[in-house]
Amino acid sequence: MDIQDLSQRIAAGERRALARGITLVESGRADHRAQATQVLAALPRDRQALRIGLSGTPGVGKSTFIEAFGMTLVQAGLCVAVLAVDPSSARSGGSILGDKTRMDRLSREAGAFIRPSPSQTHLGGVARRTREAVALCEGAGFDVVLIETVGVGQSETVVAQMSDLFVLLLAPAGGDELQGVKRGIMEMADMILINKADGDLKPAAMRTCADYAGALRLLRKRPQDPDGYPKAMMVSALAEEGLDTAWADMQALVSWRREAGFFDATRAAQARYWFEEDVRSALLSKLDDATAKRAMEQLGSRVAEGALAPSAAAAQMLDVLDG
Amino acid sequence: MDIQDLSQRIAAGERRALARGITLVESGRADHRAQATQVLAALPRDRQALRIGLSGTPGVGKSTFIEAFGMTLVQAGLCVAVLAVDPSSARSGGSILGDKTRMDRLSREAGAFIRPSPSQTHLGGVARRTREAVALCEGAGFDVVLIETVGVGQSETVVAQMSDLFVLLLAPAGGDELQGVKRGIMEMADMILINKADGDLKPAAMRTCADYAGALRLLRKRPQDPDGYPKAMMVSALAEEGLDTAWADMQALVSWRREAGFFDATRAAQARYWFEEDVRSALLSKLDDATAKRAMEQLGSRVAEGALAPSAAAAQMLDVLDG
Repeated sequence: MDIQDLSQRIAAGERRALARGITLVESGRADHRAQATQVLAALPRDRQALRIGLSGTPGVGKSTFIEAFGMTLVQAGLCVAVLAVDPSSARSGGSILGDKTRMDRLSREAGAFIRPSPSQTHLGGVARRTREAVALCEGAGFDVVLIETVGVGQSETVVAQMSDLFVLLLAPAGGDELQGVKRGIMEMADMILINKADGDLKPAAMRTCADYAGALRLLRKRPQDPDGYPKAMMVSALAEEGLDTAWADMQALVSWRREAGFFDATRAAQARYWFEEDVRSALLSKLDDATAKRAMEQLGSRVAEGALAPSAAAAQMLDVLDG
Repeated sequence: MDIQDLSQRIAAGERRALARGITLVESGRADHRAQATQVLAALPRDRQALRIGLSGTPGVGKSTFIEAFGMTLVQAGLCVAVLAVDPSSARSGGSILGDKTRMDRLSREAGAFIRPSPSQTHLGGVARRTREAVALCEGAGFDVVLIETVGVGQSETVVAQMSDLFVLLLAPAGGDELQGVKRGIMEMADMILINKADGDLKPAAMRTCADYAGALRLLRKRPQDPDGYPKAMMVSALAEEGLDTAWADMQALVSWRREAGFFDATRAAQARYWFEEDVRSALLSKLDDATAKRAMEQLGSRVAEGALAPSAAAAQMLDVLDG
């Protein structure tokens, strides 16, 4: 494969070259990894997309939202890439991400690029692959990269740590029938969008929106949030309502953060975080082989039973690793 | 030092022996560490205290609450130990924890034991020391161990991971003057207590209580919570109101969790967590020496500037560690 040629085609915005680059990035083969590193190094460094992380459980209308929101961006003259982080091992109908057939209009737009979620692996690997796919999309000149996640395990944290904005999508909930936001996720949200604010669901959407706006006010203010953020607001992907406003509010937030220095500072901190994470993962990879896993499991069981103190078991485990 | 003698005195509930045991546990000296391990191993294994983690920022009346709540327990015939986790390097007046002079009545009770926070070190060390101090208090026959934290950095997570119940103490907040719960902490709370629900602050306490009760309902239900939990309720440590009710509700929650199997399962999971944490910390301790720290910082800066990709920098760092 001609790496230089592939890089140039990606930089020129060729969709098939980009798809091929992402395939390299996603590959587990060592030679593909080496090629991927070369491609990434050869891409122009002066391009930056707005990275928007998007989380929402199945049923909130995520595909419909991404299609409608993506169309809003395309119609504003922007190029949009859609990537997905889905570390779940058992995929159900609701959790197939970045499914082109569910984003029929957007997938046919010249300004859009949709990449289905790669086959799942451990989250550490998913994180690196997604980061590198984002970098490829930036090198290909996209204006906005949407990174969606279904929120299994720690995947929201992974997505939030590679996004400039993190958006939580919710459906209207009435009375006691609360959907229950995953604990901890409100701390990461820059914006909460209540989807399906249309027709019969409008009143429930208004109540849900007010509930979450109230809950957000109870959280400690972060330095990177101007007055009024994080914000809860209503949209309807189906009726295509509120999407312009949501986009305007995202842009306002990004402008404020750019001027206040938080945008670049967050990117720098994220890059440093991923560097440190990569180092930590490599050191901890000693625990990945079969012997180590078996010893961890056996010692862990004795600790759980109360037969062995945690620190004593840890000392034994280190002997296993050194032996 | 006669380890056997010290262990027997601790098991007999002698306060001075317990204090000496905790001093051993807190010591950085290797010979003290070895002795501490022997003492811990020699204690009776069939004793179990209820471990209550307690978090609250300065100003919520934490010392007053611990004194009044501790007295409630003592008057119910229970023995209570108070420990503290405070990893903050700069202590202010408000964050001195476990200060006996601020718990005058409780410190004079025969059924109570108050241990001020040890001099700060890194949180990993604090976690192990506090866990072992808790184990000493259990071996000494205490019924309840209160573990308080001022909530700097990750200290709430550390305390929650060694507690059977995690309680968040808040002060009433009026209108816009919201205190702002640290993001992420609501996910750990089993109970939120609004203190100072007395006199002029009563109406504000009622509003604050309703606000947090509402916010808790928006979070996803955890399997270890029966109906109505996590609960937000009002107390007044000063007027000694609501403390009996709070204690009754804690007992009800604990009984439910015991019967449903969550109590023992959580303890087992916590022990396993600390074992795994100890192993991970030991593997990551390669990064603690001066050369490694300098290399991490230098490479991290280049990554933050965008001069080097995170994964490329990580590869260089691993070379440094192996060299």
